[in-house]
Amino acid sequence: MFRRLLTLDEARQIIGQHVPTGSLGVDVVPLLRAFGRVLAEDVVAGLDVPSFDRSTVDGYAVRAEDTFGADENKPVKLRVCGMASAGRMPKMVVRSGRAVEIVTGAPIPEGADAVVMFEETEVDNEGILVRSAAFAGENVMEAGSDIRRDETVLREGVVLGSSEVGVLAAVGLAKVKVFAVPRVAVFSTGGEVTKPGRRLLPGKVYDTNAYSLSAAVEECGGRPVFLGVSSDRASEIEGALRRALACADVVVTSGGVSVGPKDLMPKVLGSLGKPGVIVCGVAIKPGKPVTVAVIEGKLVFSLPGHPTSALLVFRLLVEPVIRGLAGREADEPLVVKASADVRMFPAKGRRTFVMVRLKRDKLNGLVAEPVPTGLSGAITTVARADGFVEIAENVQFVDAGEEVAVRLFKNFVG
Amino acid sequence: MFRRLLTLDEARQIIGQHVPTGSLGVDVVPLLRAFGRVLAEDVVAGLDVPSFDRSTVDGYAVRAEDTFGADENKPVKLRVCGMASAGRMPKMVVRSGRAVEIVTGAPIPEGADAVVMFEETEVDNEGILVRSAAFAGENVMEAGSDIRRDETVLREGVVLGSSEVGVLAAVGLAKVKVFAVPRVAVFSTGGEVTKPGRRLLPGKVYDTNAYSLSAAVEECGGRPVFLGVSSDRASEIEGALRRALACADVVVTSGGVSVGPKDLMPKVLGSLGKPGVIVCGVAIKPGKPVTVAVIEGKLVFSLPGHPTSALLVFRLLVEPVIRGLAGREADEPLVVKASADVRMFPAKGRRTFVMVRLKRDKLNGLVAEPVPTGLSGAITTVARADGFVEIAENVQFVDAGEEVAVRLFKNFVG
Repeated sequence: MFRRLLTLDEARQIIGQHVPTGSLGVDVVPLLRAFGRVLAEDVVAGLDVPSFDRSTVDGYAVRAEDTFGADENKPVKLRVCGMASAGRMPKMVVRSGRAVEIVTGAPIPEGADAVVMFEETEVDNEGILVRSAAFAGENVMEAGSDIRRDETVLREGVVLGSSEVGVLAAVGLAKVKVFAVPRVAVFSTGGEVTKPGRRLLPGKVYDTNAYSLSAAVEECGGRPVFLGVSSDRASEIEGALRRALACADVVVTSGGVSVGPKDLMPKVLGSLGKPGVIVCGVAIKPGKPVTVAVIEGKLVFSLPGHPTSALLVFRLLVEPVIRGLAGREADEPLVVKASADVRMFPAKGRRTFVMVRLKRDKLNGLVAEPVPTGLSGAITTVARADGFVEIAENVQFVDAGEEVAVRLFKNFVG
Repeated sequence: MFRRLLTLDEARQIIGQHVPTGSLGVDVVPLLRAFGRVLAEDVVAGLDVPSFDRSTVDGYAVRAEDTFGADENKPVKLRVCGMASAGRMPKMVVRSGRAVEIVTGAPIPEGADAVVMFEETEVDNEGILVRSAAFAGENVMEAGSDIRRDETVLREGVVLGSSEVGVLAAVGLAKVKVFAVPRVAVFSTGGEVTKPGRRLLPGKVYDTNAYSLSAAVEECGGRPVFLGVSSDRASEIEGALRRALACADVVVTSGGVSVGPKDLMPKVLGSLGKPGVIVCGVAIKPGKPVTVAVIEGKLVFSLPGHPTSALLVFRLLVEPVIRGLAGREADEPLVVKASADVRMFPAKGRRTFVMVRLKRDKLNGLVAEPVPTGLSGAITTVARADGFVEIAENVQFVDAGEEVAVRLFKNFVG
């Protein structure tokens, strides 16, 4: 029986309908543990930052009008009547003709509206000579000028980097609500698959995918639950799936999705409850045999066994789901423009993904060069690539020199 | 006494001379814990991957020469003499006129040199009809074609992402040598600095820098050792420094580096042993008052108290040191080209850093727009910026429309 394969866009849409709505819950974490997490609430400042007018330099707090007209030749003399320290509200008042010594960060005393830097002054008996005119507000950081009370300083969905953590600290938060990290169970299937570190018997291969996919889960903000290797017997696959569903929000397996006699995965996936298999093959290359099911309300991705195919399909279909569950804003992956080094052909009727390395040409432009081996079975193909070029189903070819968008695996700096 | 400030390049060079040579040691970690770590050895494959000729499809292993001339109208008949499973070396030999059923990943039996896909065949009594000619090597992944034994698959210094972890698994490594993560002690100084979560007394501010800098340490691959706030008394600063030096490889403090009477940090740094202070102020804006010392052979960075200045100087001077200690390849930070939105002026005689937001213009080019407030005291300045533009000391201005390089704080996707 012939059945048209789903297009990539159709597959994405079907999967999108099955991503559980609402997040997986919220953790309240101390600020020091918040780095890299995703904010689960809008944060509104409970105070002005700074909460008082603050000197940005060391010098003398003055009334600006007292210094009008001051210059090298005609300095203005002011009487110093105290000192303002950081951390304490000064009690003195700066009246006309007076100044208060002040350090960086100290509150501006009442009456003063500017600070003259030490460098612009000279000590003269009990007073100072000011040698340049100050304007009102000079060297003063006004209360609320960094953050105003009741201002929304950060929005739900933002990933907390160094400056965001700084903003949370500045408004005095010791704890913050972040989205729970999605748990993603990962296992490989196949009688030939051997755990690294064990002796490799003839005809066997080391498990690559459970390791690379666990790392890929971390790369996109999930927490991998590593379940190792399952044989390709139906009962063992079913047991592995049950364990995975019991301890994770999403399940990712690899291997066992081709059409061979050992490829039981789609059958097992179809037998574990409704709706079961929702995607059975996608018109992409590589990665065509990917199968996606929903069991116990959770998405189960059965990826091809070939290491490069598995990682590619992970990026295309699994990563968006994990990012969505993690509450991350829909930030697009990093894409750079480059010119195709050679003519690239799509596989007939399939969205085709060509692994490429980037290099710089004479004019410092980027050139996308396909990684020599096209074997989707080779882990080194993806390891040698900086990213991939996507060729649409209906394109005849991408010509040498044509501009292509390269989706990067990581920051490229060539 | 007038002393010329060091230029940024001079400061970098002096600091570079004091980065301890050799790494901080090596950890041997299980592969599942290796993600994001830095490889501390060249990895040489101990085996071919795959270690045998392997079928890449489900079908029949054949002698290609037997199928020459086969097509729809003139299929070739072959006798099926067994089945090759994944994970076991087949014992049968494929003689002329014969075929062996084979699944994806199974070893190619002796005598066969190609695999015909099921789709190209038809079962016919005890044999099969092959309807298209196969070429030698078709659908066969040769032994060693992914990774060859004795090949160096990964080099020291590489950061282990998903595909690198996959390569390590493919060659059977269960553990891997990675560089120890540099421990970086972080504390703030200042009598006005209050721990977030406590009540803010008049004249006080919440500690921003110890939190944002701890996160910045994580961002560049270090492990922060958070030591909170020290007052600005000499004895307390000295105690905090001693504790920091005892438990970390690098120390980062903020505040207390201006010229005011409370700015004891440079004095304390100079009193704790040779060589003491190596950099005392740099001709940059913001960040001029940064002080760097070497105590007990360890680098101590005393950053300005202003949150944006502190984070900027961290990126300019501290991050390269942490990355170096972590054994990371000298990978450059992410830079994009944009056109200046407005004319930007450098501070006289100082390398100037302008925080900018990126936006797209009508032609989809990037435009760098300075973040409205220039206050280096504002944490929101850096939080609102996508990156910064560097203006050289000797440049009069960067004109509106001129091309500038924007160093990104994180991946920008506008």
